[in-house]
Amino acid sequence: MIPAPYLLYLGRSDDEVGLKTSRGLAVFRRDDCVGEFRHDECRFTLGLPRLGLAEARGAGARTLVLGIANPGGRLAPSLVEEALEAIAAGMNVASGLHQRLRDEPRLVQAAEEAGVTLFDVRDPPADLPVGNGLPRAGKRLLTVGTDCSVGKMYTTLVLRDAFRARGVAADFRATGQTGILIAGEGVPLDAVVADFISGAIEALSPARDDDGWDLIEGQGSLFHPSFAGVSTGLLHGAQPAAIVMCHDPSRPRMRGLPHYPLPDLAECLAMNLQVARLTSPDVRAVGVALNTSKMDEVAARRLCDETADRLALPCTDPFRFGADPIADWTLRCFAPSSPKPTVSA
Amino acid sequence: MIPAPYLLYLGRSDDEVGLKTSRGLAVFRRDDCVGEFRHDECRFTLGLPRLGLAEARGAGARTLVLGIANPGGRLAPSLVEEALEAIAAGMNVASGLHQRLRDEPRLVQAAEEAGVTLFDVRDPPADLPVGNGLPRAGKRLLTVGTDCSVGKMYTTLVLRDAFRARGVAADFRATGQTGILIAGEGVPLDAVVADFISGAIEALSPARDDDGWDLIEGQGSLFHPSFAGVSTGLLHGAQPAAIVMCHDPSRPRMRGLPHYPLPDLAECLAMNLQVARLTSPDVRAVGVALNTSKMDEVAARRLCDETADRLALPCTDPFRFGADPIADWTLRCFAPSSPKPTVSA
Repeated sequence: MIPAPYLLYLGRSDDEVGLKTSRGLAVFRRDDCVGEFRHDECRFTLGLPRLGLAEARGAGARTLVLGIANPGGRLAPSLVEEALEAIAAGMNVASGLHQRLRDEPRLVQAAEEAGVTLFDVRDPPADLPVGNGLPRAGKRLLTVGTDCSVGKMYTTLVLRDAFRARGVAADFRATGQTGILIAGEGVPLDAVVADFISGAIEALSPARDDDGWDLIEGQGSLFHPSFAGVSTGLLHGAQPAAIVMCHDPSRPRMRGLPHYPLPDLAECLAMNLQVARLTSPDVRAVGVALNTSKMDEVAARRLCDETADRLALPCTDPFRFGADPIADWTLRCFAPSSPKPTVSA
Repeated sequence: MIPAPYLLYLGRSDDEVGLKTSRGLAVFRRDDCVGEFRHDECRFTLGLPRLGLAEARGAGARTLVLGIANPGGRLAPSLVEEALEAIAAGMNVASGLHQRLRDEPRLVQAAEEAGVTLFDVRDPPADLPVGNGLPRAGKRLLTVGTDCSVGKMYTTLVLRDAFRARGVAADFRATGQTGILIAGEGVPLDAVVADFISGAIEALSPARDDDGWDLIEGQGSLFHPSFAGVSTGLLHGAQPAAIVMCHDPSRPRMRGLPHYPLPDLAECLAMNLQVARLTSPDVRAVGVALNTSKMDEVAARRLCDETADRLALPCTDPFRFGADPIADWTLRCFAPSSPKPTVSA
């Protein structure tokens, strides 16, 4: 486990979505975060005290979390310099980037000399199995999306809490660096070797017979030309009984790919069900989660209602309005002895 | 480049498909192969002289190729022992397994002492890009399949030769260990980190403007629960103008997964076109390649004819009957100044 409390890195970031790891920790592990580190150029804040590196150490921070994401996941030179400063101040450093801290000799040497630890959260477990597609016991819900970074992890975590509030055993299964930092465990799916994508998810969410749910964090999108392979293997490995589709209505174009529009919600839902049926023939969609953070409340509620009507599924912004409609509907759909309801019934 | 001539390893294998790397070299690089190494338990032969390790070295072999594949790709203890013997006899060792030769300290030490080299063919190139899906110039054909190991590499290589025989520039782009050993270059796609699957293929088959073709070796199947993520990223990265569907009619069940039947050919073709359209909206199917090696010639020709009629596409066993029908049809479909023909026209 990575020692808390944390100092969350924002740096010079001008990409709101790129800050999602720092923001996720600020939201779901707030009590463990003492501050944020950002330069004047950074337009964003997580609402935490702005602290320098030595200052944060003085305030009790034990680990600097490089909670930023960029396509390709490289360690920029300035990031290495700042990590060196944090180490000199006596902090551990944690990173979810593809390029590993341990592959930067200056960091390794500095950490050794300072007696602190480097955490590469994106290291997949050793000895992952190849997926076998064998039907396994237990109920699993997977969040899928029209794009990357549209709220799949938030939705999964809020749903987990809503299930638990209803007395249902429910576990969050993290598949990305932010989720892993929040949960303390999981599989960094995008860093797994390609042959083992579905096998990694089979291992992450093994058979369970306690009538509880595994709520699996989705990744990417079947419609994202960079990452659809990951999303496909995740769907097959998860064998989901239920999927929840996540979408950011403010985003007209795929993240990082301005030449690709977002898919239509109904088309995206149909494609996800089609792909999922290979390993989970009875899979069903149980809800739509919208990230309405850029809309006023009236417009947001109206869009949720319209979307629910159009797709005949409960629709909410789980983070803003709670996940109750989706949680209630899912548990009703999978109630032990009742016939499967339909929305129009 | 891996020094030829080769001694091809069969060992004790009782899995015909698992020998595909050794067999591929025996077929497409026969002049570079001096013999095969097999135990009495092995029921298969590549038609090469059966040689012991020291004997093969005496016959000129410079490299022992561990040309066997198994799910998970681990180095069995007996394989390590035999590789040590080959090294002691003065041979290099090449392997396409996931588990690397260089991660076995005894092999590393023995190779160093003997002055020979270990080749891990499944090492992906460093610094692969994330796929960007940007449309790129050039014509690309991708082989896809109903399953793993149904003849995608054979079909791609025979098509390459058929294109060249028609005066068309054509290059084979290898994506698996056998293809890489045959071509001397390529990307071992199943060993690439999941986030880079489509980017690896964009790098493997860059834009070309010589009116020639890149013929890209497919991997896995969209209907294989273990590997569909790889196949999806490959389709998106390839941006194929044309796809050729490969199938083994003798195989009722997915390789390694007896609980999964093979998909219907028409369904599999439709799904491949649907997925490919994300990055290549005008993609079209140009042929079906059957592996009829377990059928007599009359039955094989009849099945090719029936399949061609049913799917309205040229169908052949490229290895047995040549790839002419598919090559002719493809070049006609993509001839510069003519309208696109249809089979029924």
